[in-house]
Amino acid sequence: MSIREIPMNKVRITDAFWSPRQRLMTDVTIPYMEKILRDEVPGAAKSHAISNFRMAAGEETGEFYGMVFQDSDVAKWLEAAAYSLALKPDKELEERVDDVVALIGRCQQPDGYLNTYFTVKEPQNRWANLLECHELYCAGHMIEAGVALHEAVGKDELLHICIRLADHICDRFLQEDGLPGHQEIEIGLMRLYHATGNVRYRDMALRFLDLRGQDPQWFKKHTPAHPNVRYGDYDILPEDTAYNQSDVPMRQQTAARGHAVRQLYMLTAMADAAADTNDAEITAACDRLFDNITRKQMYVTGAIGSTSHRESFTVDYDLPADRCYGETCASVAMAFFAHNMLAIKPEGRYADLMELELYNAALAGMSLDGKRFFYVNPLAVDTSVSGIVPGYQHVLPQRPAWHACACCPPNLARLITSLGKYLWSANDDTVYSHLFIGSQAETKHGRISMESSYPWEGKAEYTIHDGGCFTLAIHIPQHAGKLQICINGKEVEANATDGYCHIHRNWQAGDRMSVAFDMPVRRLHAHPCVRDAAGKVALARGPLVYCVEGADHAEALTALILPDDAAIRPVVDGDLAGMITLQAEGLVQKASDQLYSADAPQTSPAPIRAIPYFAWGNRAPGDMLVWVREA
Amino acid sequence: MSIREIPMNKVRITDAFWSPRQRLMTDVTIPYMEKILRDEVPGAAKSHAISNFRMAAGEETGEFYGMVFQDSDVAKWLEAAAYSLALKPDKELEERVDDVVALIGRCQQPDGYLNTYFTVKEPQNRWANLLECHELYCAGHMIEAGVALHEAVGKDELLHICIRLADHICDRFLQEDGLPGHQEIEIGLMRLYHATGNVRYRDMALRFLDLRGQDPQWFKKHTPAHPNVRYGDYDILPEDTAYNQSDVPMRQQTAARGHAVRQLYMLTAMADAAADTNDAEITAACDRLFDNITRKQMYVTGAIGSTSHRESFTVDYDLPADRCYGETCASVAMAFFAHNMLAIKPEGRYADLMELELYNAALAGMSLDGKRFFYVNPLAVDTSVSGIVPGYQHVLPQRPAWHACACCPPNLARLITSLGKYLWSANDDTVYSHLFIGSQAETKHGRISMESSYPWEGKAEYTIHDGGCFTLAIHIPQHAGKLQICINGKEVEANATDGYCHIHRNWQAGDRMSVAFDMPVRRLHAHPCVRDAAGKVALARGPLVYCVEGADHAEALTALILPDDAAIRPVVDGDLAGMITLQAEGLVQKASDQLYSADAPQTSPAPIRAIPYFAWGNRAPGDMLVWVREA
Repeated sequence: MSIREIPMNKVRITDAFWSPRQRLMTDVTIPYMEKILRDEVPGAAKSHAISNFRMAAGEETGEFYGMVFQDSDVAKWLEAAAYSLALKPDKELEERVDDVVALIGRCQQPDGYLNTYFTVKEPQNRWANLLECHELYCAGHMIEAGVALHEAVGKDELLHICIRLADHICDRFLQEDGLPGHQEIEIGLMRLYHATGNVRYRDMALRFLDLRGQDPQWFKKHTPAHPNVRYGDYDILPEDTAYNQSDVPMRQQTAARGHAVRQLYMLTAMADAAADTNDAEITAACDRLFDNITRKQMYVTGAIGSTSHRESFTVDYDLPADRCYGETCASVAMAFFAHNMLAIKPEGRYADLMELELYNAALAGMSLDGKRFFYVNPLAVDTSVSGIVPGYQHVLPQRPAWHACACCPPNLARLITSLGKYLWSANDDTVYSHLFIGSQAETKHGRISMESSYPWEGKAEYTIHDGGCFTLAIHIPQHAGKLQICINGKEVEANATDGYCHIHRNWQAGDRMSVAFDMPVRRLHAHPCVRDAAGKVALARGPLVYCVEGADHAEALTALILPDDAAIRPVVDGDLAGMITLQAEGLVQKASDQLYSADAPQTSPAPIRAIPYFAWGNRAPGDMLVWVREA
Repeated sequence: MSIREIPMNKVRITDAFWSPRQRLMTDVTIPYMEKILRDEVPGAAKSHAISNFRMAAGEETGEFYGMVFQDSDVAKWLEAAAYSLALKPDKELEERVDDVVALIGRCQQPDGYLNTYFTVKEPQNRWANLLECHELYCAGHMIEAGVALHEAVGKDELLHICIRLADHICDRFLQEDGLPGHQEIEIGLMRLYHATGNVRYRDMALRFLDLRGQDPQWFKKHTPAHPNVRYGDYDILPEDTAYNQSDVPMRQQTAARGHAVRQLYMLTAMADAAADTNDAEITAACDRLFDNITRKQMYVTGAIGSTSHRESFTVDYDLPADRCYGETCASVAMAFFAHNMLAIKPEGRYADLMELELYNAALAGMSLDGKRFFYVNPLAVDTSVSGIVPGYQHVLPQRPAWHACACCPPNLARLITSLGKYLWSANDDTVYSHLFIGSQAETKHGRISMESSYPWEGKAEYTIHDGGCFTLAIHIPQHAGKLQICINGKEVEANATDGYCHIHRNWQAGDRMSVAFDMPVRRLHAHPCVRDAAGKVALARGPLVYCVEGADHAEALTALILPDDAAIRPVVDGDLAGMITLQAEGLVQKASDQLYSADAPQTSPAPIRAIPYFAWGNRAPGDMLVWVREA
């Protein structure tokens, strides 16, 4: 009994929190990204991505510039632009998208191959170095863009290009083994399979997935020496098999390790394949890694990747707050993975994770004005060291305007513009509502709409527009307090099973169901093995994790102490656009000119103001802290 | 009114704590080091240091091997061997020392030059690259060895070799500018000046000191390119002027930064020069840096150097416990510096620092059996990450037998074997006792002996053997509790000024003065800007800082909580050779399978056992923690 998402073209978001953010994307971020790709933003890091395509088409002369995977910036922008066109028709953007797609078409080689780096710079080395050269990665993103244009706005030119590209890949790699150096093609091929129904693409995705780890020496055997070329910011070592999860066969993996985005892209594709094939072994592997990540390797904000060294997972419970990597892309990919797990089985923990990432680690990647982006999402910033002292150089107190490696901004853009597809799914007898994001959905059981004042209040109201006999299954977040569900004003029994309340009923057109639950301020404590969080508390309310910022406190943030009995008040006040902040009477440890003292620390009362984590770094640059000392 | 140390040949240590450690040095460590230098220890990292000298003397063929400063291992061993011979005459060791000195003599070039690397490998490049090549550094250590053999055992052959070497250096660098890439020659030249009275060596030391920072571009201008040679484990960058403190003129420096050992060797020489010349400007610079280090950049154990990246200081209050560098050599050098400051002005803070280093950060560099050594001295070890995860790879849970870069073991050896000179000093009317280390001293005011049960008890008894009218100034540690001083059983007024109790009296032969002070367990708290110590407590008693070890606790050490009202009992028990451990009823936070929980943390009672920090890592490899959570 397969559960499928209700696609975004059947969902319209009308949400006080997310609709303005989608408009930011369509009106500000996506046009800005396009200008970046065209090198039209003075002062921003050079992209050259469109120029690379022009050179590959023989329409411009010069040198290839940028990362070996620079094409993927264009692909991810096209994917986001497709979703943007679906949200907000825009004739001029559509024409420019058509132009870029046509340009891409002119770059495609007669055999279907498509990659500007190898067309311009090393035509003799196509597919020669799968470990480092990202050709399959770029192809995966291009296929995602092609599918997005097809599904979101019915434009199929790029889809046809991508079918030729995918056929070229299948022709080659269904014959001879090839292991993608950076997982992503598997996601693209699964999406192409869903869009076309051609099982060859699913077979290819599964073959790529299943080859991983069969021979841990694979990359060592198949990576040519290239003494005079570097393909990335850092060397990818064939012997570091954990880096790209090629040390253990995919089905046998038990713990997340290596490059976090590679790990999560693989899991995203695995979950999609498992949902489609009912492969219990892959599902079990997905669940093992889901558990390992969420129970041992994930920051409280949803960030993953504890070390900047190769952007990687490290070991269980190693979650340093101030040297966190927490790449935005990895949190975006956590949402992808959780969303695909919901297609296997609608369990609340997957929706909880999707919610955590959307409202915290992923969303923090972007400034409130949609123009600046974090690659790294720390849980503590001390401006005396962050960005300065060795080991902290990747941790910035402010979002930069653009990155030379520009993977994160378009990843956020495609997530937020395609948010519609994360909200609802359905099977033959049930409609699932996963997130309290106000929207209207056309389901196989008729039209349903929902209004919500989330994330600020635990309230939502569903309206049934057509009626019918089916189950409405509402995800009740793990953090929800006392729950009340009323249908047409009359309370009904509300018991969540596996995180969902199932309301079976012969629904009538016009039926209204309200869901209300308490969202008390939560004091979160970490497992005692998390060194940086021991003895500390993180505040949360509803889906939001909070942090304290230097902008609100005169003292060092590490001097603040929140007594365990302090009343914490949700307060809407001045400078943060109507957000609910958390305020409490705390203490501050007085500083002396002594570094160490045998005297008991002196404290004095100090107000503490915590703001939503996603909103940090939008005022003057300063310190930030998620884990606050508790007394 | 110059205060001079009472030299070690006038002091005999008879101390229950230190005498066995000196015997370890003479009987175990120094013979072991010699075997290492001669490549006679199977399984230990190859040294080749003696072979390098044989090759430089033309008596062996082959390739130079080891660090460009490998000679300094021999020099530091010779210096330690000199002190060892003074502690314990040993005909065979003396003969072997003579042999090595004669070998060194045969390596010396006709013009006085002495360095095996440049004699064997790059004779054309003598003095060409002062930034990286350590010729002056090696010369400084060789001169220290020459002076040590002269002063400790009256053997002058190496002194004469070193005089020729120093003259060669003066001939060159009193004429043309030369900036030592690694401070050390300044210490050697000052010691040679004290030994010979030849002010030219002091002038040369001051010229080296004063040149530093005059032109921050000096190294950039004077470092030749060498594309095919690397002189060290990591490249030393001419533009990183803070690394070797050449960014600001020496007299104007205000804060410690860059390579910690370079900084402290410079301060050691500066203090020596300032004491000798009464240079108020250099004294003021020393005091500024002393204050900066001890009030903002020093770990509670006395360790310095917050980052393994170039073994350096970072910024104020950046003292990560688990990624600490805290090089043993840097703590040894802190003792050198503090000792030299006492010659300028006998203030308790200098003696306190000397004590802190001797009993904690420096001593921890060595295993209890004298055979294994730490280079890095962390304040927290979690064996799931230490030595494994990027950023923690330098942090080891156990002392290795030897290091390829073997600077630390002989530095500790020369400190401990020459401990006698750190204890007493005198001027025309006062005898100063700086440390409670049982000893007999021949002072200009007659013989004085002291017995002590330090560091386990705050008790010492002084005996005046000759008598006379003078002041006996006893350093009362900053941590001392209630103090009682009795002369011949009768209590006298005991007020410390600047950390010293001055007892002026017409002493009679046979007078006995007892000093007793409480040594309560101290709960130390750090300045709230020290991120890793916020909300935590470090235990100390007397001069000793304590830590908890995995060997004594079943739970994760980060789960342990010491209530702020817990009684802490000093207990002598079983497995640690009569040391006083600290024991308390603490709490342990229960772990669940959840990473984060909104439930209040559950705790249960748990005994906590803390052991002296210097003794950590001597049982089974495991976790260690200095800063324990406090409730």
